[in-house]
Amino acid sequence: MKYCNLCGHTVSLRIPVSDDRERHVCNSCGEVHYLNPRIIVCSLPCYEDKVLLCKRAIEPRYGLWTLPGGFMENGESTSQAAIRETHEEANAHIDALELYSLFNVIHINQVHLFFRARLQNLDFSAGTESLEVALFKHEEVPWDKIAFPAVASTLQQYFLDLPDSHFPLRLADVNLDKNNNRIIKPHNFSHDNS
Amino acid sequence: MKYCNLCGHTVSLRIPVSDDRERHVCNSCGEVHYLNPRIIVCSLPCYEDKVLLCKRAIEPRYGLWTLPGGFMENGESTSQAAIRETHEEANAHIDALELYSLFNVIHINQVHLFFRARLQNLDFSAGTESLEVALFKHEEVPWDKIAFPAVASTLQQYFLDLPDSHFPLRLADVNLDKNNNRIIKPHNFSHDNS
Repeated sequence: MKYCNLCGHTVSLRIPVSDDRERHVCNSCGEVHYLNPRIIVCSLPCYEDKVLLCKRAIEPRYGLWTLPGGFMENGESTSQAAIRETHEEANAHIDALELYSLFNVIHINQVHLFFRARLQNLDFSAGTESLEVALFKHEEVPWDKIAFPAVASTLQQYFLDLPDSHFPLRLADVNLDKNNNRIIKPHNFSHDNS
Repeated sequence: MKYCNLCGHTVSLRIPVSDDRERHVCNSCGEVHYLNPRIIVCSLPCYEDKVLLCKRAIEPRYGLWTLPGGFMENGESTSQAAIRETHEEANAHIDALELYSLFNVIHINQVHLFFRARLQNLDFSAGTESLEVALFKHEEVPWDKIAFPAVASTLQQYFLDLPDSHFPLRLADVNLDKNNNRIIKPHNFSHDNS
């Protein structure tokens, strides 16, 4: 950020009065421009013993499989965001949403929320950001072709929880290891990062 | 937003290619400036059968009682934000955090997260944004002087759940009624808005 989006003058990084960290502050009008984490909302659409996955038609991770999701927009709730993204990416309809996992992805200032949901019917197809959309049983999931660790973790937990139909909320951080690989650091469950 | 914060030229509201809604787009460099919801993270510090509340020393709702909380910052996790805010507002230390409630506050583009937590000890005091900090049993909570409906709702649920020590996650929207009063619309629990 170099310019104030209100008046167009330059900004400087400095600590405002009554604050404790540097912000972008306008050198002319004094406006303080805060930068805050963004929310990614995803769904885990469930149908009988299967889950719906989308093969990505966009970068990053083109060609790998993921759960439907994307940036939460202003003017909607977290659940509405999950429903919208599922429709955009998979032309699928979900209901009965329950928050199932939350991942802090600190190095990119994001919080990822996954809602477990009921896939209403088999009327789905690839949206513009997907190459392919399909249902997978546990043993059919392409584990070595999952786009993001938080998606893999949520899917792993789901299939562990499914036999008992007990789905406690999972919280985790997504950290970078020394090779810049994303690894899951769970708060309240176990996860195999291998 | 009137100016591009990257190049300082004017922006226009228009729908970018491959998008479906208006964004602020720079008329010179073409940068698309997205606006997304912000996250407010709060704690519910618990000690024996009491909860810790802060009397607000700032607007809005100066002089009313609330749970410690504030905007999540870049570079931290949701739990870290709750711990930090609790220290800033109440000089209090918490651990054993569990996500307990989520409120979509759509009319101001915010998502509020409340973490139930263990107050480690009785060493607390008012931070700069608090006039007073105190512990309250259920019957001592100043229900008519709670700053925000989401805080009142979270406290109500907590004291309902406390006897069984069973604390399922609560999701709700905070809507405006015709008089612009905030009312709670629960997804998975009941709430008395009266």
